[in-house]
Amino acid sequence: MTSGGGLGAGLGGGLGGPVLVIGCGLIGTSVGLALRHHDVPMHLQDRDPEVARTAADLGAGSAEPPAQDPAVVVVAVPPDHVGPVVVEALQAWPRAVVTDVGSVKTRPLEAVARATSDISRYVGGHPMAGSERSGPLAASLDLFDGRVWAVTPHEAADPAGVDRVAELARLCGAEPVRMQPADHDEAVARVSHVPHVLAVLAAARLKCAPEDHLQLSGQGIRDVTRIAAGDPDLWQQILTANSSAVVRMLSDVRSDLDRFIGELSSSTPRVQPLLQRGVAGTQAIPGKHGGPRRSVDAVFVLVPDRPGQLGRLLADSGEGGVNIEDIRIDHVLGRPSGLVELSVPEGDGERLIVALAERGWAVHR
Amino acid sequence: MTSGGGLGAGLGGGLGGPVLVIGCGLIGTSVGLALRHHDVPMHLQDRDPEVARTAADLGAGSAEPPAQDPAVVVVAVPPDHVGPVVVEALQAWPRAVVTDVGSVKTRPLEAVARATSDISRYVGGHPMAGSERSGPLAASLDLFDGRVWAVTPHEAADPAGVDRVAELARLCGAEPVRMQPADHDEAVARVSHVPHVLAVLAAARLKCAPEDHLQLSGQGIRDVTRIAAGDPDLWQQILTANSSAVVRMLSDVRSDLDRFIGELSSSTPRVQPLLQRGVAGTQAIPGKHGGPRRSVDAVFVLVPDRPGQLGRLLADSGEGGVNIEDIRIDHVLGRPSGLVELSVPEGDGERLIVALAERGWAVHR
Repeated sequence: MTSGGGLGAGLGGGLGGPVLVIGCGLIGTSVGLALRHHDVPMHLQDRDPEVARTAADLGAGSAEPPAQDPAVVVVAVPPDHVGPVVVEALQAWPRAVVTDVGSVKTRPLEAVARATSDISRYVGGHPMAGSERSGPLAASLDLFDGRVWAVTPHEAADPAGVDRVAELARLCGAEPVRMQPADHDEAVARVSHVPHVLAVLAAARLKCAPEDHLQLSGQGIRDVTRIAAGDPDLWQQILTANSSAVVRMLSDVRSDLDRFIGELSSSTPRVQPLLQRGVAGTQAIPGKHGGPRRSVDAVFVLVPDRPGQLGRLLADSGEGGVNIEDIRIDHVLGRPSGLVELSVPEGDGERLIVALAERGWAVHR
Repeated sequence: MTSGGGLGAGLGGGLGGPVLVIGCGLIGTSVGLALRHHDVPMHLQDRDPEVARTAADLGAGSAEPPAQDPAVVVVAVPPDHVGPVVVEALQAWPRAVVTDVGSVKTRPLEAVARATSDISRYVGGHPMAGSERSGPLAASLDLFDGRVWAVTPHEAADPAGVDRVAELARLCGAEPVRMQPADHDEAVARVSHVPHVLAVLAAARLKCAPEDHLQLSGQGIRDVTRIAAGDPDLWQQILTANSSAVVRMLSDVRSDLDRFIGELSSSTPRVQPLLQRGVAGTQAIPGKHGGPRRSVDAVFVLVPDRPGQLGRLLADSGEGGVNIEDIRIDHVLGRPSGLVELSVPEGDGERLIVALAERGWAVHR
């Protein structure tokens, strides 16, 4: 099939035909649920037919194979299997656009290109959504709502096929963002895979710590290490699939780490420049809604740890007419209360403090 | 003064006398506010008299020097100055217990011991509380509420002085926890200083990233890098003061990092054991209220980004009789809504989902 040839023609708007999902885990089943919501005809396939039937029972589509070539095949299998399954799908459905949802793009593309020359219909993708839970029962209609969905066409990809994958992402509620596969892999190494490794390195220090030392744990260590709780088998696959970008960036990390160790071993350590780069890095992360980072006021409130108190707090905040941008609960040791940090648009802090104090809350900045 | 001699005798309950705070920043002024709340006579001193007057105006005590030896002198100056100021305080007030609030304990103790033999009245301390903001205007009455306050006596410390510092921590609303200075420093290296360095290393990677790459940033990178936004000058002092414990632990980090790089550079990477240690580490952090970590159910709700919506959500949750253990707002790109993750005690998830769905919320697990 040549570029643009049989893909867009005569299919009308939307996806123009049924969608086949291969792999009915969290992501695949959620795609089915989201597209069924738009009345897209859905078919579901899994190497375990029982799993496909479960996804079908949940309303994600039919467990029967499609009678004709699907408009799109979505390969939603574990990272290690993406390449071969994409190749099988290209061969099984010679008129379908084939996409995948794997968290790494270059290596599977290379595997596909090695196995077949018929790659114009393959367009990689990666929805930035997930959950600690897995399997079809963890799936949901709105898993992708408002999330970025990277669409990563290779150079020979059919433009109509690229549009169709972007449309599928949009129908799932996501925001398609086009990137080259290598750029994508460098980006996720930077914002996901390397931070995961660093979280693991911080968490690994805690395993053998004396218990009373961990009593000094605050919110910082909890935040830094949260993602280190992720499934080791899945992360083994992700880090392996993206190993070149990850190793390149971990080598930069090691250089910085060596500088920290060198400076702190000297008689006159000077680590401000390194620390300053960290500050600048935190400021580079896009703000809420992908817009520029907004300045906020932080307001702290002591909240009794009983059902309904947090609701009462936020209802009281709402009555004050202040929009809460963010909220953080800092768990308090040894007493039935929590310290809650409310972030509000810059300048609204005082108004919120007055509104909450009037309503009897222990509040400060 | 010998152990126990002039300290406890005849002073009655509580602290038994006035308290002098030296250094009227966030911590010092908050100590003043908290102790004034219990009618402890407070005196405030700062190398900038204007700062001491500001703290006094806020109600943290008197900017006049005490007429007699204070029961406790609290040294609340930046890390670099703790040692010399403690020595001055021991000399200026020969009957007072002197404590400090610095985040590192061994090095200042060594400095004090080098400068004077009269160290039985010195008892180190470290409240685990703070803020991104600094100065007396950022202070608050309840900064220490429910926080751990490490009390770190050296071997020759007067037991009555140790008790008095613990009582001061308690009057401030904190939970005193006794540790040896070296244990404290190793503990904070582990749960605070090394995680800070790792957060900086992750954040430093973002500074020079192409902007469109950062569009893929999710909650993970935000959590890992949050603390890297801390003041570089303060952290330079903290890391320098605790450099031996930090360097020792950073060397372990480097060994693990080298193993990650080595494995991921090989043809058959095997990083599960390293990842598994990370998982175990996250499980070692004490749970809410310092008790064992509790299992929770996570429930996700799509919330319109308008004043009062979050309050309505939590009010509706409260009516369902479910206690929210934790809440996390995941910012959604390019649309006026947020995905809110509610954590509730294990087994309560279904009940909350039903309660919220009945009240019209888009909710899933």
